[in-house]
Parts: sequence; structure tokens; C-alpha cells
Amino acid sequence: MPIYNAPLADMKFILNDVFNAEQFWQANENLAHIDAATAEAILEEMAKFAQNVTLPLNRSGDEEGAKIENGQVTTPAGFKEAFKQYADGGWIGLGADEEWGGQGMPKMLTVLADEMLFATNPSFLLYPLLSVGAGMALNSYASQEQKQTYLPKIYSGEWSGTMCLTEPHAGTDLGIIKTKAEPHADGTYAITGTKIFITGGDHDLAENIIHLVLAKTPDAPAGSRGISLFIVPKFIVNADGTVGERNAAGPGSIEHKMGIKASATCVMNFDGATGYLVGKENEGLAAMFVMMNYERLSMGLQGLGASEFAYQNAAQYATDRIQGRSATGVKSPAKAADSILVHGDVRRMLLNARANNEASRAFAVYVGQQLDITKFSTDAEAVKAANNRVALLTPVAKAYLTDTAFDAVIDAQMVFGGHGYIREWGMEQCVRDLRISQIYEGTNGVQSQDLIGRKTIKCGGTFMAEYITEIRDFANGLDATLNFIKDATLDAATEVEAVTEYIIEATRENAEFPNSAAVDYLHAVGLLSFSYMFAKIANAAQAKEGDFYHNKLALAQYFVQRILPELDMRIHKVKAGAEVIMNFSEDYFTNQS
Amino acid sequence: MPIYNAPLADMKFILNDVFNAEQFWQANENLAHIDAATAEAILEEMAKFAQNVTLPLNRSGDEEGAKIENGQVTTPAGFKEAFKQYADGGWIGLGADEEWGGQGMPKMLTVLADEMLFATNPSFLLYPLLSVGAGMALNSYASQEQKQTYLPKIYSGEWSGTMCLTEPHAGTDLGIIKTKAEPHADGTYAITGTKIFITGGDHDLAENIIHLVLAKTPDAPAGSRGISLFIVPKFIVNADGTVGERNAAGPGSIEHKMGIKASATCVMNFDGATGYLVGKENEGLAAMFVMMNYERLSMGLQGLGASEFAYQNAAQYATDRIQGRSATGVKSPAKAADSILVHGDVRRMLLNARANNEASRAFAVYVGQQLDITKFSTDAEAVKAANNRVALLTPVAKAYLTDTAFDAVIDAQMVFGGHGYIREWGMEQCVRDLRISQIYEGTNGVQSQDLIGRKTIKCGGTFMAEYITEIRDFANGLDATLNFIKDATLDAATEVEAVTEYIIEATRENAEFPNSAAVDYLHAVGLLSFSYMFAKIANAAQAKEGDFYHNKLALAQYFVQRILPELDMRIHKVKAGAEVIMNFSEDYFTNQS
Repeated sequence: MPIYNAPLADMKFILNDVFNAEQFWQANENLAHIDAATAEAILEEMAKFAQNVTLPLNRSGDEEGAKIENGQVTTPAGFKEAFKQYADGGWIGLGADEEWGGQGMPKMLTVLADEMLFATNPSFLLYPLLSVGAGMALNSYASQEQKQTYLPKIYSGEWSGTMCLTEPHAGTDLGIIKTKAEPHADGTYAITGTKIFITGGDHDLAENIIHLVLAKTPDAPAGSRGISLFIVPKFIVNADGTVGERNAAGPGSIEHKMGIKASATCVMNFDGATGYLVGKENEGLAAMFVMMNYERLSMGLQGLGASEFAYQNAAQYATDRIQGRSATGVKSPAKAADSILVHGDVRRMLLNARANNEASRAFAVYVGQQLDITKFSTDAEAVKAANNRVALLTPVAKAYLTDTAFDAVIDAQMVFGGHGYIREWGMEQCVRDLRISQIYEGTNGVQSQDLIGRKTIKCGGTFMAEYITEIRDFANGLDATLNFIKDATLDAATEVEAVTEYIIEATRENAEFPNSAAVDYLHAVGLLSFSYMFAKIANAAQAKEGDFYHNKLALAQYFVQRILPELDMRIHKVKAGAEVIMNFSEDYFTNQS
Repeated sequence: MPIYNAPLADMKFILNDVFNAEQFWQANENLAHIDAATAEAILEEMAKFAQNVTLPLNRSGDEEGAKIENGQVTTPAGFKEAFKQYADGGWIGLGADEEWGGQGMPKMLTVLADEMLFATNPSFLLYPLLSVGAGMALNSYASQEQKQTYLPKIYSGEWSGTMCLTEPHAGTDLGIIKTKAEPHADGTYAITGTKIFITGGDHDLAENIIHLVLAKTPDAPAGSRGISLFIVPKFIVNADGTVGERNAAGPGSIEHKMGIKASATCVMNFDGATGYLVGKENEGLAAMFVMMNYERLSMGLQGLGASEFAYQNAAQYATDRIQGRSATGVKSPAKAADSILVHGDVRRMLLNARANNEASRAFAVYVGQQLDITKFSTDAEAVKAANNRVALLTPVAKAYLTDTAFDAVIDAQMVFGGHGYIREWGMEQCVRDLRISQIYEGTNGVQSQDLIGRKTIKCGGTFMAEYITEIRDFANGLDATLNFIKDATLDAATEVEAVTEYIIEATRENAEFPNSAAVDYLHAVGLLSFSYMFAKIANAAQAKEGDFYHNKLALAQYFVQRILPELDMRIHKVKAGAEVIMNFSEDYFTNQS
């Protein structure tokens, strides 16, 4: 049975010591209802829920899976009760506005709550997470009446939400969707089409499901400028707010997937279903993007959660498993062999995971704080700067945290040797469940295109320049005892600054350059960001006594010496350019000659 | 339905143009029965079998899996017929000695046959592959009578074989196995113990199963010097060679695994089963190592096969899938979008896979040729040199080919976007099935320890020095038009030479150094080896006309510019040393402080 102990000590360290969260909250009238004690109490409660409720349902959920029969999806045993407990605890609306029944907690706190559930049961968390995403889109774009009708029910967990974007032929390219919305005389629309990969498209956890559906009205312009957003409830909501008759919207089937098997991923059929326009016609994509920054950061948390879970289990296994002897002589003479922790290669795998976990956690809180500034700050300058930072770093948070996490989970599985391949140990499920995080909500390749294109080249590199200025200012202020991380971070900043200029220049010469360079560039920015996070961690730890803090500095050293050397390679690959990739004919790929 | 077209053109190019195989065979009296036409005919026949027989059983085999009921394992529908066809075609003994019913084909040819089956159905191939491994151990160490009794039946497929090494508490560290072998008065032994992870431990493909079991006799010395090897047949073989009574050896259960689900991985119980000593007492491990070099190269082929399969399917999907538009303007105006092959990032993923595939294939044939020299050459000097080369490169072939393949298969899955996560498309199965190749037959971490320890430090780096001399001699002889690969290869050789000396020196100072550096060192040697392979490929292609050959040079360019930059990073990580890894206390790993 896999273990999980919520990393509360590190979470508190990051909130309190690294980011001085209480000071930040108390200085803002819109966040003054939160202090450090409240935040810690919330984290401790969530830790109990994750350890006691969702963890025990993780493997049984995988074995049982979501099932469909007669057009009705059922979730695995225990999910319904767990969802009710989660809803009753007020967790769905943890970060939602109090006006609609939420708790108004900042993102820099909710990311840590999300991490614990992604660690213990990603399939479970996806149900409420989609509700939160739908709620956020409604909160930004729906009418007051729509908000009153739907938001309190969504945050109470009586109803749930979905996002219906993808179609069989249209994933990344939403401009070519075919789902139609034909206006009725009464102002509603008839929605007709097929959507695929719809998380929580149907289930037995809530009495109603509020689908947010992208569709095209008859006279809509071609492409992404002709997409509108509609509310399509599973059951029509009566004027008094009660659940009425069944709408013509339901699951055709559920997908057979590699992992997250307890999460019902549905093919959804809309057969002239009644839909209600959200906002204005042809402005549906904007509503989507409001919640995208939040959702994509959450997907990064799926990476961190899985990686922390895998790390803890691999570290425990490595401690318990005895096999072979240390190179410097027998360490456990009373036993037939030494713990495999005596082997540097086993430690290398564990330390890679742990270093990336701690940097990822800091980075998620950092980006969460920027999101909080955009939402809660009354300082227009600060909001503008934070908006730029969020725009720049959201794709990094989504892609870099899931890419590094996948490597960590693969390594953790390897620590188990052959046992890592056996279902009972839980590591192979962790790999299967995590893999989707690199693919959905915009593949990590698409995130990289977003970073290098819209977030960098399009603004002439100003978002990145602002970020690098902040990093330099921070690094330059570090104590002399921290030169190892100061120098590494300043060097990384200079390298990323130079390659950003290189990219902007090269793109002028060749429009195909950025697409070819994108993934390596994103990883370079991720490495710089993690170096910056370790600079912050080291700064918070350096004056303090005790193993906890000394080990933070040792882990920062590990990062600099064993992980950061990847930066040069990424930059080399960026500079290799597009020609060597685009030179091949299209036929080459499917031919042997 | 996934596709597969055996890469016969590339296989023939590598055999005929890169390695001049016919000349090599015809120059050796022990291999004079093979010429290019024979080899090509064998490959073409195997291609048909792979495409028509094993490919269609791959997904159904995964869905159905191997099953156990009343102590008898059944394989998925179609496996029995396919195995009979495979056996009747003489494929099991393709590389075995003609004296025992084999076809006496060289390893440099059989690796290519293995690749095709690993591409189309790794679960299937594991059954005969274990027979081949058991046959090889018997051929080297068994008595003439034992060979007569078992080998012809194994190569005909009437019987099959297993290797029973691992126990619940003993994987990498075989010195601590507990299975006992108590001598009977008649010279046989009573074998008692539990073995796990036994591939093909039971099944319904053959009338008898010949288990080769490692066990300890009562007075055996402690550790790996006290291990003996025994034949333990499922059914005792009568004096006349017919199958007799059931032995006390059978499967307790089958493992529930991440992948290769059609391959029965058994927990095997031996309850005083009758066993026959192979060779001498306490010399069991030597017999294992005879076949290990062959088996480990085959595991590398599992990587190549999966990667080629994944590449072909991803390339076809990328060609067919339209989504978005090219950065340099619309390419398919008649369609709603362009093929995703217009995006450099998609091509990057495909070209990484293809470059590694073509280098892997050449490297497998190269190592296969060295194995053939050790077996067939009459020149003692050549045999000694080839033995050193095989010792050095076997761990590289196993680990580097599977590590690069795993990255390629993960990328291929990503090319499919969300569809890559859905079972019906076959990509996620490919990931699950391949993953084991990095773990079994000695984890890739253990391979790396073998390379850096026994194969490098122990001999003072002489094996590596000999290899680098060969690489330099070859690169220096290249035509001036190939300076791009000549320079890259010579630089890589110099870097690997220097880091090898660095490792030997650093290990004198710190015995923990090599364990920490091992995986990065293996990858550095892998990169050098692939550069050498591309030098050979480029040399064979350079004077020839036509797209096939021009594209070989373009792919070599891609390798140099987009893959080889990883070498510097690997060397940096090696030099980071062990202290930064070993500095942490053992407690640190399972604590948050």
C-alpha cells in the first residue's frame, strides 16, 4: 500500500519563510481575512483528507475505473462519499469568491491544497477541478442571473461543471470546431455536435452537470473569432432553481485510457440540446482563456503532486530494500546486505526528484502569488506587471512542472526495480496517471509555442526582460555565503537573456525558427526559474540553524551541480535552428527513403 | 489499428553498405553458409511474419492478457497458433548451432529479426527468447547428454525454457538467494524455494517447460560464489526422451503488470522439485553470464523495435492529422488546416526518434558482429579484441538503446495529442510494454555500474581506449565532404577519453565516485557510439545518388546538431562528483527535514 505524508513542513517554509505570505496578505485589504495560522489550519485539514480519504481510493479507483451503462456513468466505489465529504468541507469553493459561496482563499494557498489531492488521487480531483474551472469562466463572463443560478450550486457540490472544447477533428486548433448553436426565438440556442475527451462529462457525484460548450452560431466568422460559449445543463434548471427535465446532452461512451481511469472521460453528444449564451456571441474563446491561466497552473500541480508521491514511496522503498554493499565497506553488518541508499545512483534519482519538487512547489506558489496580485491588488501598476508575469510563466508552470515530474516519477519507478512494474506497488499507476498532464490542457509542445511566440517574440521579449530584471535584483542582494547560487542564477539569467535576443533575431530571418526551438527554450526558462527559486529558498534558509535549513542549502547545491548543467544543452539545441529540421520533405517521414 | 512496415531498406543498407556483411561472412569458414541473398530472404520472411501474424495479436493480447486458473497459465487467443507457426518456421533456433537443430545464423542478422518481433509484439517474442537464452546456457555448460535431451526439443518449440534467478528479497544481489538444492543419492537434487518475475514460467504453448534455476547446495560458500545452476523440467523427461510425470515446480500466481500483459510473468514455487545440476556446483553464475551478453543485446532490440513502431505510427498520424497553419503561410489551402508536419516541434520529435532508431540499428549490428567474431572467428587476437569490445558495449547496447527508445516512444505518444492517451491508438500500450526493458535483465542503472566499474575502471580503461582508437582510425579516414561528422566524432572521442581518465583518477580518491557518475557516463558513451555509427552511415551513403542516401546524410547532420549537444551536459554531471550526492544522511530521504 503506497504511503503519503503531506509535505506540510516544506509548504509552511515556502509560504512563511520564502514568500512571507502573511505579510503579503495582511498588506492587502482584499486578502486581510487570511493569516498564517488560517493558512496552516487549511493545509493541515487538507492533509488529513488527502491521507485518509483520497489516498485509500486511489488504487481501487484505478482497478475499478469509471463505467458507463445505459448512458449513465458511475464512479468507483467510495468516490461518491468522498466527493460529498469534500463538498461539505467547502473545498470546491476554496479559492472562489465569498459572494457565491466560496472561501476567497488566494491561489498561493490553493495550489498547495491541489498538490495534496493530485498526489493522492488525481482522478478524484479532476471532478471538482473542472467545476472550479467552469465556475471561474462563469464568474468572469456570465450574467448576474446566470451566476446566481449556477455558481452557488457548483461551489456547494450539488452540481458540477465541465469544459466542452475538443472535437474529434479539432484539438489545439479550436478554430475549426463544427458544433453548431442555432438561435431559438426565446433567446436560447439549440446546440448540436460531438465533443470528445470531456472530463467528468457524466458521473454520479452530483445531481446536475453544467456543461460549458464552445460552438458556432450560423453566421459566425470562420476560425477562432467565431466561437461562442454556452451553458448546457444536463438537466434544465427550472425558474425556481430546482432541477427540471433532462436536456439532450449526454455521454455517448467513455474513453479507455492509459491512466486516470477513475476519471470519466466522455464522448459527449449534443442533439439540439438547450443552451444559454455566456457573454456575447463570438467571444467564447476569451472566456476560456480567463480560466486557462488558473487551470494550467493546476496541471503543473498534478506534476508536483505525483512527483512528491513517487518520491516518498521510492525513498521509503530505498530505505527498506537491502541489496548489495556500499563501495566504501559494509554499512549494515548485521544484515545480509546494505540499504540501496548506499548507492549514489539511487540517491541521484531521489535527489533529482526532491530538488525538482521543492523548486516546483516554490514556483507554483510564486506564480500563484502573481495571479493573486492580478485578482486582489488595487495597485494598477502592480496588476499590470503581474499580468505580464502570469502570461509569461503560466506555460512554464504547466509544461516544465509536468515534464520534470514525469522524469522524476519514471526514476522513482526505477528505484523499485522490477517491483516498480507491478501494479500492487502503485508506481506504475503513478506513471500512467501523470502522463496525461503533459498532454491535456494544451500539450507541453503547445505551451512551449505559447511561451516563445505570444509571450516572448510578440512583445519583443519585454515580459522576459522584466522577469530577468527581478531575478537579477534578487540574486544581487544575496549574502556572500550564497555565492554558489547567486553566481549560478546570474549566469543562467545572462544565458537566457542572450538566447531570447537570439530567438527574436532568428525569427526575423526565418518564421519557422521559433516552432523548432520552442520546447528547448521553455526548458531553459524552467531551469532559470528553478535556479531563482533555489536562490529564494537558500536566502530563506541561510541564517537559520538546524538540519531542515542546512539541507535546503545542500539541495540547492545539488541543483546547481547536477541539474542546472542542462541549461547549456538546451541553448545549444535552440541555436541549432530550424533548417536542420525543416530540410526534409514531408514524404520522408512516412517513407524509409 | 496501428501499422508496421518492417524497415527492410534500412536493414539491408546497414548490413550491405555499412558493414559489408557478405564479405565478412564469406571470409570466415564458419559463416560461409550465409550470403547477402540468404540474409535478405530471412529478413523478408520475418517481416511477413511480424506484419501478418504478431502485429494483429498485439492489442488483443494486451486486452486479454495471460491468465492463470488451477495452476495452469493460458496465453491470449492466437498466441498458441502463432507460436507453432514460429517454431515450425525454424525461427526459435535461428541463431542456434546446427548440431542441435538450429540454423547457425550470425547475431548481426538475428538482431534484425528480433527487432521486427519486438516492434510488433514484445509479449509474444519473450516466450521464444527465454527458450533461446536457456538453450544458450545449456549449450555452454550442460553435459553432452543433457544437450541431447533438451536442446533439439527447445529449438523445435516442442518444449520451452525459462531462467529462474530473482527471489522476493534478491534481485540485483543474487548472492543472497535462498532457494535450496539438496542432493539425492541418485545424483539429482531436491529444489525448494520461490522465484519471482519468471517470464514464461508457465503457459500453454509447449508440452514441457525446462526451468533453469539458480540455487544453493547445503555447503555452498556464502554470496555469489555459492550459486549452482539446475535443470528443473515442468514434466520429468523419461529415459526415452518422452515427457513423464509432473515435477513439483509450478506457478503460484502471475504478476499484474504495467505492460507486456500477454507475457506470463510468474511467481514460481519449487517444492522439492527434481533438479539436475548443470556444470559444476557453485559455478552457476558463470553459466548465466554466458547468455547475458546475448540477452542484454536483445533487450536493447526491444527498445529499437518499440521506437521504430512508435515512430512509424506517429509519422503517419502527423501526416494525416490537420491542425493549425504553417508559420510560413498556408500549405494546404484546400483543407481546413495544414498537416501537423508543418510544425518544427512535431518534426523534432519524429527526427529524434528516427535518428536514434537508425543509429541503434547500426549499433546493434555492430555489437552483433563483435559477438559473432567471439563465436566464429579462428583468429585468437581478433577473438580477444572482440571479447573486450562486447564486454564494454553490452551494457551500452542494453541501457542506451532502451533509454533513448523510451524517450522516443514518449515523444511519439505526444505527437498523437490526446489520442496518444487512448488505448485504441496503441501508443500508450507501446509505452507500457517498453518500460520494462529499462528495468529487467539488470536495470539500466546496474548496466551503468557494470560499464563504469567492471568494464572500465577495473581494466584501467583499456577496453575504452581500444574502442576509441578504432573510432579515431575510422573518423580520420573519412572523406573531406564528411567533416561535419568527422569533427563531431573526433571531438566526442576526445571528450569521452578525457572523462574516462577523470573517472579512473577520481575513483582512486573516492570509492563512491563511480556509482554516482555511472548513468551519465553510460549516456556519454552512448552518444559517442551513435556519433560513430552516423560516421559509418554517412561514409556508406556519401558517394551514392538518390534521396535514400542524401537523407542519411541529412539525418547525420540532425544528430550532430540536435542530439549530440547532450554530451557536454553528461560530462558536466559526471564531474559534479559524489560528495554532493552522498552528503545527505540516510534519514534525510524519508524525512522532510
